[in-house]
Amino acid sequence: MDAADVRSTNLAVVLRCVRELAPCSRADIAAATGLNKTTVSSLVSELLKRRLLREVGTAGNRVGRPAVLLTLDGASYAAIGIEVSADYLSAVAVDIAGRTVLSWRRALPGATGSPARALTAVASLTRRVVARAERDGRRVLGLAVALPGTLGPQPTGPGVSPDPTTTAARDWRDADFAADLAAALRLPGLHVETGNDADFGVLAEHRYGQHAGTADLVYLTGGGALGAGLVIDGALRAGSAGYSGEIGHIPVDPGGPACHCGRRGCMEAVAGIAAVIRRAAADPQTPDIGGRPPIAEMEPLIDEITARARAGDPATLDALTGAGRDLGAGIAILANVLDPRIVVLGGHYAELAPWLLPAVAAELRDRAIAAEHGGCRVVASTLGLDAPALGATARILDAVETGRLPGDPHTPARIRGGRAPLDPSRAAPVAGRPALQPPVPTATDGTAR
Amino acid sequence: MDAADVRSTNLAVVLRCVRELAPCSRADIAAATGLNKTTVSSLVSELLKRRLLREVGTAGNRVGRPAVLLTLDGASYAAIGIEVSADYLSAVAVDIAGRTVLSWRRALPGATGSPARALTAVASLTRRVVARAERDGRRVLGLAVALPGTLGPQPTGPGVSPDPTTTAARDWRDADFAADLAAALRLPGLHVETGNDADFGVLAEHRYGQHAGTADLVYLTGGGALGAGLVIDGALRAGSAGYSGEIGHIPVDPGGPACHCGRRGCMEAVAGIAAVIRRAAADPQTPDIGGRPPIAEMEPLIDEITARARAGDPATLDALTGAGRDLGAGIAILANVLDPRIVVLGGHYAELAPWLLPAVAAELRDRAIAAEHGGCRVVASTLGLDAPALGATARILDAVETGRLPGDPHTPARIRGGRAPLDPSRAAPVAGRPALQPPVPTATDGTAR
Repeated sequence: MDAADVRSTNLAVVLRCVRELAPCSRADIAAATGLNKTTVSSLVSELLKRRLLREVGTAGNRVGRPAVLLTLDGASYAAIGIEVSADYLSAVAVDIAGRTVLSWRRALPGATGSPARALTAVASLTRRVVARAERDGRRVLGLAVALPGTLGPQPTGPGVSPDPTTTAARDWRDADFAADLAAALRLPGLHVETGNDADFGVLAEHRYGQHAGTADLVYLTGGGALGAGLVIDGALRAGSAGYSGEIGHIPVDPGGPACHCGRRGCMEAVAGIAAVIRRAAADPQTPDIGGRPPIAEMEPLIDEITARARAGDPATLDALTGAGRDLGAGIAILANVLDPRIVVLGGHYAELAPWLLPAVAAELRDRAIAAEHGGCRVVASTLGLDAPALGATARILDAVETGRLPGDPHTPARIRGGRAPLDPSRAAPVAGRPALQPPVPTATDGTAR
Repeated sequence: MDAADVRSTNLAVVLRCVRELAPCSRADIAAATGLNKTTVSSLVSELLKRRLLREVGTAGNRVGRPAVLLTLDGASYAAIGIEVSADYLSAVAVDIAGRTVLSWRRALPGATGSPARALTAVASLTRRVVARAERDGRRVLGLAVALPGTLGPQPTGPGVSPDPTTTAARDWRDADFAADLAAALRLPGLHVETGNDADFGVLAEHRYGQHAGTADLVYLTGGGALGAGLVIDGALRAGSAGYSGEIGHIPVDPGGPACHCGRRGCMEAVAGIAAVIRRAAADPQTPDIGGRPPIAEMEPLIDEITARARAGDPATLDALTGAGRDLGAGIAILANVLDPRIVVLGGHYAELAPWLLPAVAAELRDRAIAAEHGGCRVVASTLGLDAPALGATARILDAVETGRLPGDPHTPARIRGGRAPLDPSRAAPVAGRPALQPPVPTATDGTAR
């Protein structure tokens, strides 16, 4: 770790501290971080110069000289998140404090059918978002793109037929979307990364949601395919190869309906959002909308179902209760394996939550070992359909707060490229053993000795 | 963080570094930790004085002055681990390098039936182990005790009958075993903690096993009740309330045999070690040995089954294949949720592994989303029945290597009491948000400035 690294680390420590405590004084920062006041002053000066912090007046009600208060500077930067969903793209930009400064949606029927087509559309949307941000005087901190469902291999085995709604899964897997997008964008130095919608969904809940900061948090996608994003002990845990949370094909009801994977009664087939809609649809002639239906087909059905449920239609209520019970049986498996504090139902689940949640909770109480001890609560997301795009911005802000500062003297004019580590504790493994966390010796000006 | 804390942290950094690199020179340590050479020399001197390190000669094949090589001092300390199993206690002591220096087993039929009785027996065994360690010139670094199965609430719900083999579960839950044991021992300053057998099992594999250091590792208990211990991203993840890995009642075969929880075909009922034994037992008159049979009843049956399997008895091989398939179906659920790199079959599973593993692997390939990409491998433990007791010692050594050094000037004559945090990253949460990791400013002598 050289002098500049130490200073970057300490700048990020101060930035994180201000997010937690703002508005706060330099003395508050020194107390919270353990850095001495001279070091803090030097670091704060640099963050002010880089327009990451700003001064917001003084604390008048304290003893002695009034302290100047600091907060994050919301005017100078933007982090961009984009989601490629079944039939639309959404784009969100947030400032460095996480406030949404832009939210666009663009219809793109069959967006997930072809990576090449999605790439062109995402590149074009990104250019517009970047142009808007720059017109507003913001530098772009980076771009993350949420891609649909599993990016890895699909389930295989005897009797497994290819999922007709995901025939392009192999193309997605093989495409290095982030690299191709960066090449297409030709915006030198712009950090570009991708992730799966469930992982970004849980990052959104962890930073922006009603239960933000919950150390053990699970998010279920309620858009296309059923997946879970896992925050465990305060960080996203994507698994050893990035495949954690692939819960769609956990068997819940082996005597249940056929799943597109070739088995029967998988969690997605009985309680994925498309299955919930199918079960609660009034008209028995409603065609099977499959595992990953376009949102344009789901929205009117969801509206119709919620209207009937609000009116107390018994068949609708029964169907939602039955679906909630199966969803609860699946969530109980997650609860028994992971013991999360909160499970968030995302996407369209949230709209149906008033009628799903009682059955989910009953089933969880019945099946989860720890539920009785106030362990696990299932709640509806408050972030709507934008959660994955918002989570993409959370990924960018996380990277800034763990040291990838904009305008770092070591980096080119824009942000240094390369993929940010998912979790800082993974950054420096020593021969497969737990990472050594080297201390950061500093002189009073925050540079290494 | 005061001066002494900084120095303790840096002493622990050096200690961990020597474990990774030993034999190594002071210069190697400086290079690996980023601490400067003067600081390293000062820290090493103190660790030598405290008899945590020792010098083991010089590296002759280097250029320049021969460097003195350092290694952990195996002679001065012992960490003690004890397991309370269904019908025995086992005790293990390891030196600071993790080498076993004592391994005792003591029959105690019905040990888990009564916490009070177990407490008396554990206290007596501990006194003998401590006396032996001290006679050998070792100071005791701490004691951890592995307790059986879930320490929390048992499954409840319609049709759930109490498990006759665990009628005392409520007593275990209510007993604060660690505090009671510390009081009974009257060894002032001795650090005492408890944990569950599955959690300690995975800690043993993570520090001492064939796949030590694997960042994403799952351990299945093959002794009494079926449970899983989870290491995710390099650390034990016990869940938000300590109940992760409660996999025994995940439904695997809803048409299967009755489980003591009141449902049918739970993972424990079809593929827990007792179920495997029952399925493979030659004599159809073999009584149902229940979910948590005493080891004294299991050992002869395991010997008989392995003998018949080795001889190629078709009925035995069929039964083990069937049990392996069900076990694989359950492990596939874990694999889809967690995406671990390695799943270790512990306890008696290991003895039956040659016949279980092929079916487990086939089922996993068939059901796990990520299996094809070389994700998850299932292997047999090489640590035998002592894994939970060994894992208890791993917990003590982990605490030393994260700063709870013996003979710390801040602590009483023995080791400071209190419960060690499970995971250092959890030690300093800031208002529920990810922990701020304060930098550690030091002067050249390793003390804080």
